[in-house]
Order: sequence, then C-alpha cells, then structure tokens
Amino acid sequence: MTELGRYLDAGAARIPADLVIEHGTLANVDTGEFYPADVAVYQQRIVAVDADVSAYVGPKTRHIDATGKTLVPGLIDGHIHVECSKLSMTRFAQLVLPHGTTSIVSGLDEYISVIGLSGLDEIFAEIKALPFKVFWGLPYKTPYTMPKSTIAYNVTGADHERYLPQETCYGVWETVREAVAVQDPDTLKALELAKRFHKPIFGCSPMARGLALNEFLMSGVHIDHESYSHEEFLEKARKGLHVVLRESSVTQFLQENIRAITEGPAGVARHTSFCTDDVTAHDVLAHGHLDHMVRLAIQAGVAPMTAIQMATLNGAEAYHIDDTVGSIAPGKDADILLVDHPGTFNVETVISKGTLVTQAGQLGVPFKSPKRSAALQGHLKHALLTPEEFTYPVNRETGTATVRTIHSEGPFVRKALDLDLPIVDSVVHPDPAQDVAAVSVIERYGINQNHAHGFISGWSIKRGAIATSAAPDDNNLVVAGIDPADMALAANTLIDCGGGQVVVVDGHVVALLKLPIGGITTDLLPEELAEKELELKAAAQQLGSTLPDPLFYLSFLPITAIPDLAITDGGNVDYTQLTYFDPILAVKS
Amino acid sequence: MTELGRYLDAGAARIPADLVIEHGTLANVDTGEFYPADVAVYQQRIVAVDADVSAYVGPKTRHIDATGKTLVPGLIDGHIHVECSKLSMTRFAQLVLPHGTTSIVSGLDEYISVIGLSGLDEIFAEIKALPFKVFWGLPYKTPYTMPKSTIAYNVTGADHERYLPQETCYGVWETVREAVAVQDPDTLKALELAKRFHKPIFGCSPMARGLALNEFLMSGVHIDHESYSHEEFLEKARKGLHVVLRESSVTQFLQENIRAITEGPAGVARHTSFCTDDVTAHDVLAHGHLDHMVRLAIQAGVAPMTAIQMATLNGAEAYHIDDTVGSIAPGKDADILLVDHPGTFNVETVISKGTLVTQAGQLGVPFKSPKRSAALQGHLKHALLTPEEFTYPVNRETGTATVRTIHSEGPFVRKALDLDLPIVDSVVHPDPAQDVAAVSVIERYGINQNHAHGFISGWSIKRGAIATSAAPDDNNLVVAGIDPADMALAANTLIDCGGGQVVVVDGHVVALLKLPIGGITTDLLPEELAEKELELKAAAQQLGSTLPDPLFYLSFLPITAIPDLAITDGGNVDYTQLTYFDPILAVKS
Repeated sequence: MTELGRYLDAGAARIPADLVIEHGTLANVDTGEFYPADVAVYQQRIVAVDADVSAYVGPKTRHIDATGKTLVPGLIDGHIHVECSKLSMTRFAQLVLPHGTTSIVSGLDEYISVIGLSGLDEIFAEIKALPFKVFWGLPYKTPYTMPKSTIAYNVTGADHERYLPQETCYGVWETVREAVAVQDPDTLKALELAKRFHKPIFGCSPMARGLALNEFLMSGVHIDHESYSHEEFLEKARKGLHVVLRESSVTQFLQENIRAITEGPAGVARHTSFCTDDVTAHDVLAHGHLDHMVRLAIQAGVAPMTAIQMATLNGAEAYHIDDTVGSIAPGKDADILLVDHPGTFNVETVISKGTLVTQAGQLGVPFKSPKRSAALQGHLKHALLTPEEFTYPVNRETGTATVRTIHSEGPFVRKALDLDLPIVDSVVHPDPAQDVAAVSVIERYGINQNHAHGFISGWSIKRGAIATSAAPDDNNLVVAGIDPADMALAANTLIDCGGGQVVVVDGHVVALLKLPIGGITTDLLPEELAEKELELKAAAQQLGSTLPDPLFYLSFLPITAIPDLAITDGGNVDYTQLTYFDPILAVKS
Repeated sequence: MTELGRYLDAGAARIPADLVIEHGTLANVDTGEFYPADVAVYQQRIVAVDADVSAYVGPKTRHIDATGKTLVPGLIDGHIHVECSKLSMTRFAQLVLPHGTTSIVSGLDEYISVIGLSGLDEIFAEIKALPFKVFWGLPYKTPYTMPKSTIAYNVTGADHERYLPQETCYGVWETVREAVAVQDPDTLKALELAKRFHKPIFGCSPMARGLALNEFLMSGVHIDHESYSHEEFLEKARKGLHVVLRESSVTQFLQENIRAITEGPAGVARHTSFCTDDVTAHDVLAHGHLDHMVRLAIQAGVAPMTAIQMATLNGAEAYHIDDTVGSIAPGKDADILLVDHPGTFNVETVISKGTLVTQAGQLGVPFKSPKRSAALQGHLKHALLTPEEFTYPVNRETGTATVRTIHSEGPFVRKALDLDLPIVDSVVHPDPAQDVAAVSVIERYGINQNHAHGFISGWSIKRGAIATSAAPDDNNLVVAGIDPADMALAANTLIDCGGGQVVVVDGHVVALLKLPIGGITTDLLPEELAEKELELKAAAQQLGSTLPDPLFYLSFLPITAIPDLAITDGGNVDYTQLTYFDPILAVKS
C-alpha cells in the first residue's frame, strides 16, 4: 500500500484518524467564514473537516478539545532569510513554531554562499526531520552583489536548468530588478526556465514604479516583497503582482503598507500576504512572528478574517503551495493553530505536520539539532592577519587624503560623504573626530584572498573594532574600527573560532558570539542567542557608537542593493553605477 | 537579442508599442476596481497599463479608441472538450473568439483516443498558429471508460512521467473520482507525479459529498467542475476545491450552482470560475459562450466585477496560468475585450495574443485550417458490415428473451429496464411497440474487431437507424436502430466516408454529416455545421424519436461514467458495479 493509498483510505474513514479536534470554530479562509467544525487528522494530513467527524474516530484516536477556540491554518512567512536570525534551521523552527509559523518560503541563499548548492542536501535533511516546512526557491543567481563578490558557489542559469524541474524547488528566489534591467544572461535564463517549468518568480523591486515597474513585470515576476509606500504597494497590486507586506526587525513597513488595504479598494487584500524577511530571535521572543503581523494588521483596521487570509491562503496561492498549506481542508498538511479569538489572535496550541508542537504554550516535542558535516563546520579559510593589513597606505608620507566615506543614514540608506583625513607615515587614518572609521572586507572561502579597504562615517565609533562573518549577501569577513591592532584581533578571533561576531577594545575581546555552522549560524537556544546579541550590542555601543545595532549595520555593509554605496571583498561599490570606486579621491599636502 | 530581452525593452519603452488602447475603463480584476486606464501592447503581450501610456507610442503605433467601453481580460473556459463541438480547433476558435473566449483549458482527450499522444503535436501546431490559447492537461488516463474500452492509445502513468515536466502540460485532466476510489495504479501514479512536478490536478466528482468527497480530496485534486446542486458546490468550495461552474449545451447548471454565490458567503466567489464542458456550434451562435455565462450570472444577481473575475482571473489562478492570462497587466498576453458595459456585457472588440480578431463584431483575421496529416484523415479501420452482424442470436429458435435494456431517462441518467422481447429465427428482435431498439458499438481502430450488442429503451425509435463515430470517451462506431439492414447501411456509410453522423431510413441515407478529421471533427464553418446538425436532428426525429437530440444521446452511450448503464465495444456496462453484463437475462418458450 502506497502512502497515497493510505491517505485515501484514511479520507474514506477506512483507517481511523490519529487525532480529532472538536468543538472549535473554524476560520475557513477558503470561503472567508467562521463556523463550528471538527477536524480529523491522519499522520501528517487533514482527512476531514465536517460538522461531525465521529466516523473517523477509532479506539486510539487522540482528542483535543477546542471549545471556545478558533482553528486557524498554520501561518506562512512568504519571504525570509532564516540565516539572518543566526539560528540554525532547527532552532529557528523552535523559535517561530510556538507563534504559529508552520511554513516559510526561503532561498537558503546564505547557506549556498558558504557551502554551495550541493551542500543544501544537509539543510533539506535537517528540515525534513522537523515539524516545519520550508518551501525553497532557487536564487535567480548568487551572489546578489553587483559587481559580483566572492562566495563559495555561484548559482547560474545551468543550475536553474537542473533544479527548477525538481520537487524541492518552488520557484526563482528574490529576482532583483536591477539584474533584470541590465539583462544579465544568467538571470534571463532563470526567468525563461521558470516559465518553462511553470514555477513562480519571486521578485525584489524596491521603489519600482511606472516604466521601471512595467519593465520588471515583463520578466514574468509574480511576487514582490519590497514596497516602501502604500502607493507603491497598490500600484504593484493593480499591475498583477502578489505583494508581500514586510515587517522585518529592521524595516517596519506594515504600518505604512497596510494603508493600501485599509484605505484602498476592498479587492486588493486577496493578492497580499506577510513576510518578515530578516528577524532576530530577540524580536520574535519579545513580539512574536507572523502572529505579531496579524495582530498589527488587525490593530490597523484590517478585518480579522482578511488578516488571517493574508497570513495563510493568500501567500499559499501565490507560491503555488496551496495543495499542501494555506487552509484547513482535507488533503492538506495538518498545520492547525488554536487561537484564543480572531481579534486578539494569541496562538495557544500549534499542530504542524500532524504533530502537537505546543499545547497551551508548552513545547510538546524536543528540538534536537543534527550533527553537522565537516563542510558546515569548516573554519574560515584565511591566514591570521596583522595590524598592518588593516591600514590604508598611500604614496605620500604626510598630508591629507580626500576620501569618499560610506555614510550610514539608516540601516537601508547609505550615501557618499567626502571628507579630508590625515595622512601619517604614508597611511590614511580614520578620524573619530570627524566620525570616520576604517572598514575591511576579507574574502574567507580560500578562493582569492581579496581584502578591500574603505571608510565608513555616521557610526560614532571612537575606539576598538567590531567584526562579523555573518554578512549577507556573501558572508565574507567584515571588520570595522579605529585601531588596526584591534581590527586584526577581531578578525583573527573569528578566523580562530570558525566565524561569528566579536567586539574588541584596547586589545581585549569584550564580547564574542560564535557561529560555528558555516560561520553564519548557531545551535544555541533562541533565548541564549537573544541574550548574546544584547551583550554584543551593548559592547559595540561602548565603542561609542550611537547606532541602534552596530553589528547589524556592519553585517549589511556588503549588500550592494542597499543604496547608494557598499563594500564587498571586491572593493567599494557605487550601486547607482554598479561599479567599484576608489575611496581615495585625492591626496594633497 | 532574445524574445524576453525584446519584451523587457518594450516594457521600458525603449521599443515602441504596436498598439495602444485609449480612453477606456479598465476592469481591474486583480484589485476588483473599474477605473480609466490606457493599455500599450507590444507583439503578443501587454507592456503598460497606466493613466498615460504616451511614452510607449511610436510613429507606427496603432491606436484604438475605447471611449465609453470597458476593457475586460480575455475570457477563459476552464474545462472544455473542444472535440465535442465536432469543430476542428481552428473552427472552434473562430466560433468562440468573437464571444471573447481567448483561452480554454482542455485535455484533447478525444484526439488522443483516435491519434494517440504523439498525434497531439499536429493539434498543438494548429493551436500555435491561432490567436487562441489552449492550456492542456494530460488526462489522468485514457480511456475513461470502466471497464476499459478500446481506443488508439492508452495513457498510463508512464506518460505522466514523460509529459508532466513539459512546458505544454498544465496539469492532470479530469481525474475521475471512481478511478481514485478504486486506487487504480495508473491514476495514483499520475497523482503522485502531479504533486512532484507541482502541477494542478483537475478533478471530476459529480455528487461527491461527505466521506466520498473527503476521500477524493486526499488525492490532491485542486479543481472540480461537476456540482449538481449549490449545496454540493458550497461544500466543495469550503473544503478547498476551486469549483468550476458548468453550463454546457446539455447540462445547464448555472442557475442552480450560482446560488452558492448569490446566497452563500461573500468570500466563496474567489475560488470559482466558469466552464462549458461540451457545447454545440448552434448554442454558441445562438446564445454566446463564456460571455453568455457572465450575462447569466449577472442576471442571477452576481456583481459584474465578480462575474468577470469568475470568467478570467479566478480560473487563471487555479490552473496556475495567471502568469500569462487572467488580467490586463504588464507581462501578460494581450487578450483584451472591449465590452459595451459591465452590466450588459456585450463583447464588441476582441484582441487575442495581441491580434485584433474582431472589431465592432467584424472578423479581422482569416481562419485558415491547416492541411491534415494522414493520421488524422485515416478512415475508420473496419471492414464493411452485413445486416446479420446487427442481430442478436440466441440458442433457441423462437420464444421470448428477457433482456436488460439501457433505458434513457435523460441525457445523463440511464437505468436498467428489463423487458421481454420476441425471439424469431433464433434472433432476439427489437420491439418498437415496447419502445426497444437495438444498439451496437463497433471497435474502429483496427485493434480487436470488437462488436458489442445491446438494447436501448425510452428513445421512441420506430424505424431506420442512426450512427455516429463521434462518441466520447472512445469514439468507436455506435449504431442504433430497428432494422438490421438500415443499421448496416448507417455503419458502412460512415466507414466509407471516414466517419461522421448519419441517419438512415428504409435503405436510404437521409442525412449525413462527415467528420473527416479523425472521424470526430470537421473544418466546416461553424454556421455550416450548426445547420447540418439541425438537419441531422430533424432527420433522426423522423424515425419517431421524441428525444430532443437522438444523435447526441447516441454519442454519449459509451460514456460509462453516466449512471447507471452504458455500452462500449467491450460490452454492456453496469457502472454501479464497474462490470460488464449480459443483456440476455433469460430465454424461454
């Protein structure tokens, strides 16, 4: 008897259910109704949703009493970089499942950057063992950086030819508008193959309007998660995009974008959903995950049913995963939440893939991390560094250098700020008085030993150094600071321990988070990680920085897509021109 | 420059549009709004939908003035057997395009029955040359008949392995509930492969409710087009099916099923759409096609926007073809209708794949049928028949035979009616006095020379014979009548001409429709065919039959899925048991 045959038998009640949930109110997102219904579950799937499921009850069937509770489908995060949380897949699932997130859509692009596409098998095996689902989209290409920085593996069109037909691949992940606009051949190949294999294209087009948006839409892109205003959000919805509303730990866009729904036409909500993109363990522990977004939407004036549909069915349909998730219906995975009330939306009990994960808030299953392969435990491939390697030499012994600094005006706005810095002993020195620090990005895959130097401003760093090997999109080693010796110690500390984040002051490591899984994630418990991150943040702020989270800003410096400037192992990047620039504009006496 | 590259350039207005449609009101089905908008089209696709598209206008751009008109996306028929119209693909497109149907979803299962899967390449080539789209689903298996009758090619699980990954294949067509319930291995294989390749399963589950429906849903089926009541319709929608509302030439279900929308919860419409399943040229010419369904829905109380969404976007999403069709948005095919008013919904101008097909009701393009290959023009593979071959011999010279007749109580209800018939010269004779005629189904693919004999009642046939080679699901030769000589003449006439439909009285052919394309369709103009069909109907009724359309009833006799009885080349079928039965129950003196 095949698995399908067994499920057919269970649907016909020839095999009794493992579990029935009785006396609850069903949130039927398919028809937009609330009404009383019982649910029967066999193994991983729902087999019946009816007024009476007693035909499915056998002697060993477990009963859950849902009196007074609302049954809601498991929540879906439509776009998230799990790795950004710095938690392993197992720990991330452990973090978000109690909040009702039973499925996520993810590109696993950071794992690809450190262990390549073939390395993902290890991550897929980890996912499979969890009561949690990851719908994977193959990145349109890697790295995302333009110009290309160095990573362990470059995804190209040939990979799309191989992976898009496969069951594990649900579409093309995070297709960046600029890559389409320049008609990058690998990107175009990915788009053509997505059309051929009927898999959706997930897009990324912040601030695209009018002609630029029309051009991007010709790519066949189906989904977009980057709207900076409710007008942009509405234009995208009107032009046929499924628009994913983002509320990440750094960009809180819900309050603005939700206006497209609360003030816009009634029909727009149907093609919208939620995502968190990048979240910290701390924020999820403090506020929640998708459940938090549902509550925020309801507080903003969205009807509870509409908010629930946005967190479940709407995204499931857009990603073509509604055969498995998105509603409580026979044949779908048994991802079912017991919620106190649709309007207050406190998730009390979570069933995922038929497993009772939490009941009345108590974890009902162990989350055990798998053994990691050597590939994922590998050290950063770079020799130890000297302080001299963190200086910027010029061919003039003294004087002044006019430098272009990468000036942070917020986590996602970086502008050019040209300043004069002193030259001492043929080296351009950072200048705390002018709020300028030095920055290095060091290639760490053992491919080319790249080491790019630059300057950042607007961070208020007065001394010491900070470093991180968790740094999308390429996860090279990023080091910033005032003192070259501290910068070298910060870098070497991470090279020594296989990666992580560190704060160094006056020759001492004052805070260290090890990220032994590929140098980007850890199996620490979410609570442990959240505490560590607070320590790191406090330590980094003791360097004088007034930024809300200096290590977070640091880790995002190599993302070229953040306008206008970035720095990767290849050099300082002007994203408005998609070119490298020399930060030393001029030297004079 | 690739095709995609050109479209990107056109989207960015670096290449001028071929066509702009100005001053109209857009029916935006994505957000459920009507508002003024202009549309720019380049080649086959829409490149802009904006308040102002002047940036897209070049010196050669054609302008269409849509003042006072509503722009509606091309309509989609979600489930149709084109072959049932007896028109070739070219002529069918010519028939329905002026009514705004620019896309259909079809299994081409009847073509498969006569020329096999490889033969479809010829049909796909015909479609490609038309301003018309057919989204093809590979039948879950062929033949649909249970037990299996004889056809030119049996689709099995191995075909799904080969075809489901292909671009031309959009899902699994018409998966019959009974085949799932008996866990037919080929059917289960098709279902498992559909899941693997992320392609939707189209189902067929008339009157499935409760446990039977739950069991069917465990198959992963996503769409269903067979509801006999609005309660059934609503139960299916609530359990997560996309429900396609059918209004065919024989089963008018709209009036009943639309109540699920007009009386049901507001949210149900989103997961519903329209189909016509089987339509005659006459009905389309007289009433319209999908446009007729939109008008009927509006008359029944559905809001015009909702009815338009049902005819466009809703189905497009369910079939995962909304990357190409379903709304007027950049990147989608330029399938655009100019309609007088959303409430009256008269289709005046039709643009399909960027081609102006009809303007103000006038055909703007020629519809030229392609040359047919020998495979499609082949004659029926059977030797000429003698009158003796249409008699039912028994091993008793005279007396009475108790026979089980297939009693027609309507086009889709056939019950067993047991009657005594006279035996003369060792042959059981049909008996017009008791309203019993003889029926034969003759295998016509040259495979096994099957010839099944049976009896029908309730047709009021008094003399002569009728025959058809167009007869889903297997398109064998079906002959019914009173006089064996007339039955032989009817059969031989069709064998002679390569197939069709014929009426014979007293040794004369009184009406003949040739169907030279595979014995099932013709390149006659729709108007010519409609006239021929009226002639045939009138001639058949002159045999004494009081049925509304005897040849239609005849052609459906081999469909085993019509409860309770059927007859195929394999024999008389009791569908309640899925077995053959001997119509001679007893012989006596």
